[in-house]
Amino acid sequence: MTSAASQVELVALLEAERVRVEAALERALAALDADFRGDLRAAVRHGVLSGGKRLRPILCVRAYEACGGSMGPAAYDLAVALELIHAYSLMHDDLPSMDDAALRRGRPTTHRAHGEEVTMRAGAALIPAAGLQARAACRALGCPPDRTRAVAEALLEAAGAGGMVGGQWADLLGEGRSLSASELDDLHRRKTGALLAASLTMGALAAGAPAKLVDALDEYGRAIGLAFQIADDILDATQAAETLGKNPSDAALGKSTYVSLHGLANARALAQGEADRAVRALTGAGIRAPALVALAAYVIERES
Amino acid sequence: MTSAASQVELVALLEAERVRVEAALERALAALDADFRGDLRAAVRHGVLSGGKRLRPILCVRAYEACGGSMGPAAYDLAVALELIHAYSLMHDDLPSMDDAALRRGRPTTHRAHGEEVTMRAGAALIPAAGLQARAACRALGCPPDRTRAVAEALLEAAGAGGMVGGQWADLLGEGRSLSASELDDLHRRKTGALLAASLTMGALAAGAPAKLVDALDEYGRAIGLAFQIADDILDATQAAETLGKNPSDAALGKSTYVSLHGLANARALAQGEADRAVRALTGAGIRAPALVALAAYVIERES
Repeated sequence: MTSAASQVELVALLEAERVRVEAALERALAALDADFRGDLRAAVRHGVLSGGKRLRPILCVRAYEACGGSMGPAAYDLAVALELIHAYSLMHDDLPSMDDAALRRGRPTTHRAHGEEVTMRAGAALIPAAGLQARAACRALGCPPDRTRAVAEALLEAAGAGGMVGGQWADLLGEGRSLSASELDDLHRRKTGALLAASLTMGALAAGAPAKLVDALDEYGRAIGLAFQIADDILDATQAAETLGKNPSDAALGKSTYVSLHGLANARALAQGEADRAVRALTGAGIRAPALVALAAYVIERES
Repeated sequence: MTSAASQVELVALLEAERVRVEAALERALAALDADFRGDLRAAVRHGVLSGGKRLRPILCVRAYEACGGSMGPAAYDLAVALELIHAYSLMHDDLPSMDDAALRRGRPTTHRAHGEEVTMRAGAALIPAAGLQARAACRALGCPPDRTRAVAEALLEAAGAGGMVGGQWADLLGEGRSLSASELDDLHRRKTGALLAASLTMGALAAGAPAKLVDALDEYGRAIGLAFQIADDILDATQAAETLGKNPSDAALGKSTYVSLHGLANARALAQGEADRAVRALTGAGIRAPALVALAAYVIERES
């Protein structure tokens, strides 16, 4: 549990980081303008510049710094590759053939604003764009080729069927039937955990961290990923859709959630357990990163 | 125009190459089995093992060989990365929100056999899988890091909004209205030309070819890409859907085609002009590759 003072500091830090991430996203989108034309460009801008906490890029730069990387715009340029993948996943998730969502963070979803076909195409085109973005940023950071390779592979692996898409598929399977506790864990470890963990390992790999640190940050990422999801299910169960700015909730779609499977009190305890596990992974590897410690508490205490 | 004898030889060569490509695709899919589970796996296998000429991988290995690469299974492993991208594009093209196609090469399309959501997810997951496939194959071929990087970037660029997806978007724009001749060229240069050109440049780059050869093979690829598309439009205009094993045709969707814009005779002349330009690109750079010369004729003389 964090103190009130460190929570206030963290919120200020997150806001300062978010502003740097938005600037890096604008740089990335400006570079994409030559390729993304017309409403393909409008759809990508709608999907990418959609507000949000920018948690993945922030985790990436924090891991990069914790592993000795020197901070500067290029670190944020690397970090936003993760946000391009995250944006694609939300654009596709919301499509009529998927969750058929009208709202995302209180605004119309990308396909409601720009059409279904363009949103599908723009989303898919963000995948190679993210790969190119990560590679270009690694070069700007002066990463030797083996580090660049490791960073690019971590991103592609997290974005694919072994990671995020595998979890999305498990999510489809779970609609309208009850999952076991281990099935639900596996789903979210892949659906959100893989990309969150890659956020940290990409930062560590770009900084040339030894395997021990990369592994510890991977574990931290997987733990806060699960904590984040459990907290999401708790928010869905306890807040109205207008507050969250999205609909419909997983529960409304007949999907299993941590609250539906474990009950509210147990779900809170599970989230706390994952947040604690995340912090232990850092301390066990001797990683001093106060922001990451505070973030582990933040993901389960946030209100949206 | 090719002689009858060289056409017979080419058909035999294409069949022998196709068999090697199918074997490499089976290896690639076996490696993907760990990540693609359940009907995600079934959808990917349906979409990838769908017959077809395997033109892109064949162009890749032929360019690799023409630039001094030594042929073996790893060259085919590199080449099939292109087919994974091509398969994803067809899986998404056929979706109900896109072309809503029921048949592809005489078989049910992937979403008709395995469902829309799974097909969308499986298709998107093929993009990072293709990137990883290309990188792993480059390592197996002993490419130094700078070549691997160039190969991976060529694939990602061709698959993104600056290449294939940009062309798909232009294609959307063209539905139900008449394009100018230059708009139609631009559309197809990106929609099919970018990946066909990347097939050749990836082979050349993996073999460590100098820029002059890479550029010549790029031009060859763009020319046969356009020739291929014009020939496709001619086939659509002159053959029944049952023969082609797909529907509906671009013309039926109200899209401009080379035949609708230029007429049949002019379209044939344009295709021949592109095939000639392709061959000139090779001879101009001193590339001796009889199979590529014969292929330039084949793409406009084929009957399906």
